[in-house]
Amino acid sequence: MLFDMNQTTNSAFVQEVKESFANQTVMVLIGAELTRVEPGVIEIRLPYRANLAQQHGYVHAGIITTIADSACGYAAYTLMPAGSDVLAVEFKVNLLRPAKGETFVARAEVIKSGRTLTVVRADVHALTGEQRELIAIMQGTMMRL
Amino acid sequence: MLFDMNQTTNSAFVQEVKESFANQTVMVLIGAELTRVEPGVIEIRLPYRANLAQQHGYVHAGIITTIADSACGYAAYTLMPAGSDVLAVEFKVNLLRPAKGETFVARAEVIKSGRTLTVVRADVHALTGEQRELIAIMQGTMMRL
Amino acid sequence: MLFDMNQTTNSAFVQEVKESFANQTVMVLIGAELTRVEPGVIEIRLPYRANLAQQHGYVHAGIITTIADSACGYAAYTLMPAGSDVLAVEFKVNLLRPAKGETFVARAEVIKSGRTLTVVRADVHALTGEQRELIAIMQGTMMRL
Amino acid sequence: MLFDMNQTTNSAFVQEVKESFANQTVMVLIGAELTRVEPGVIEIRLPYRANLAQQHGYVHAGIITTIADSACGYAAYTLMPAGSDVLAVEFKVNLLRPAKGETFVARAEVIKSGRTLTVVRADVHALTGEQRELIAIMQGTMMRL
Repeated sequence: MLFDMNQTTNSAFVQEVKESFANQTVMVLIGAELTRVEPGVIEIRLPYRANLAQQHGYVHAGIITTIADSACGYAAYTLMPAGSDVLAVEFKVNLLRPAKGETFVARAEVIKSGRTLTVVRADVHALTGEQRELIAIMQGTMMRL
Repeated sequence: MLFDMNQTTNSAFVQEVKESFANQTVMVLIGAELTRVEPGVIEIRLPYRANLAQQHGYVHAGIITTIADSACGYAAYTLMPAGSDVLAVEFKVNLLRPAKGETFVARAEVIKSGRTLTVVRADVHALTGEQRELIAIMQGTMMRL
Repeated sequence: MLFDMNQTTNSAFVQEVKESFANQTVMVLIGAELTRVEPGVIEIRLPYRANLAQQHGYVHAGIITTIADSACGYAAYTLMPAGSDVLAVEFKVNLLRPAKGETFVARAEVIKSGRTLTVVRADVHALTGEQRELIAIMQGTMMRL
Repeated sequence: MLFDMNQTTNSAFVQEVKESFANQTVMVLIGAELTRVEPGVIEIRLPYRANLAQQHGYVHAGIITTIADSACGYAAYTLMPAGSDVLAVEFKVNLLRPAKGETFVARAEVIKSGRTLTVVRADVHALTGEQRELIAIMQGTMMRL
């Protein structure tokens, strides 16, 4: 579950993840930023915005899923050979608490990196001042093309 | 798996679902519309927009999840007693094909409506001209508050 | 979602599924039988036995999963080229009602058959006399090796 | 994610989990043992047996799910008020490697313990001599009755 630079075979992965993320237009739309790119680990942050809400004013579960899924996909990508392309096969999300906070941070971590499939888990926390609450967890499968 | 008006106990469910949907600001942001509200069944349509994309220009899996999740939540709601509130407990999505098309339609259908928990499945199709392709399926649990 | 003999490329799939099922020793242990093998569809039946129970005397969710998973795997197999091997990548199960009944029938149906991955859904019913109740649903991913 | 005795309100939970586990007849059938009962954490061990196998001689994914699910249910139970009853609402399993080994250990850990619903994750390792490999991960929802 812990990876280091020795396990990456694509030395350009940091730059490539940044470029790919910059091409995800939905991240601009929702205001998400890529804040951590390490072997097997990605973090994406999303400040609260009122236009991302469900009926009670909290961030919609689908938007929380959006940042968690991209975090999982790029976490898988960091351990793939150069020239790979990654897509999500499936994911499962448990919503633990309403997505209520100033900022949301999705942190994905590779559990098993395989030749074709990579299994990843992500945790999403809501930050409000000093407070930090786990609001959602994801378990998913990413595929290398 | 098939419900009719006799199984609804909240005669105002159509109006209430419409009002609640109108309060989901994220639906305005992404351009989604509620197109069907029946006992145990909801449809939400989303026209393609370039600002909803992942790195290849297809609609991001999280946005497809956004419409599928709201469809599931409101499908569950249609069969709940008046005055209920619904939230997603968890969902699982399989992504079958890239979200490539002119319009996307998420159709959710209640599988089992319980006192506290409701289990729902949703299918998401991509429409392009006359063509219609299944691109994602969801299975999830909604909770009545 | 509907397949016919024209979509199978392995003309020996019925015999091969039967032989493979016969090699699953766990099916003998729990007393499960393969009762339907068609393109994209498999049924497995399990009569109730007191030694398959959880703490309340109902069949354990893991045993229900055992028949649903094998049904999904073989349903995927029916549409694969000859000489394929199939394994489960992941599955998700919602338990709708206690597994209470005389016989349990898991019916799996392929949703999308791909070159490497196949997505399958299964429903498990409990039969008691004339009564038939949906007790569990599965959504999963099978892989061709 | 870490719980201690101060968070348990049912002082008899260790004894109650043991008694309930002893009533799961399927655990006797497959030969599983309860090896750890702590606040929010359960471990169940399963020695390999040839009659638990799928077609290649490895332990069937449904049997791995059986021990992971019971581990999750009892982990949730340890943090519930006395007199509670627990049932699995749903779970999702990713199968990372074939279930090949001398012994299998499912370890479940509560992620969020709520009044009605508890979210749990489990890891299943295969042990062979000194070797220890992660073969499956579960994420699921348990309900208090």
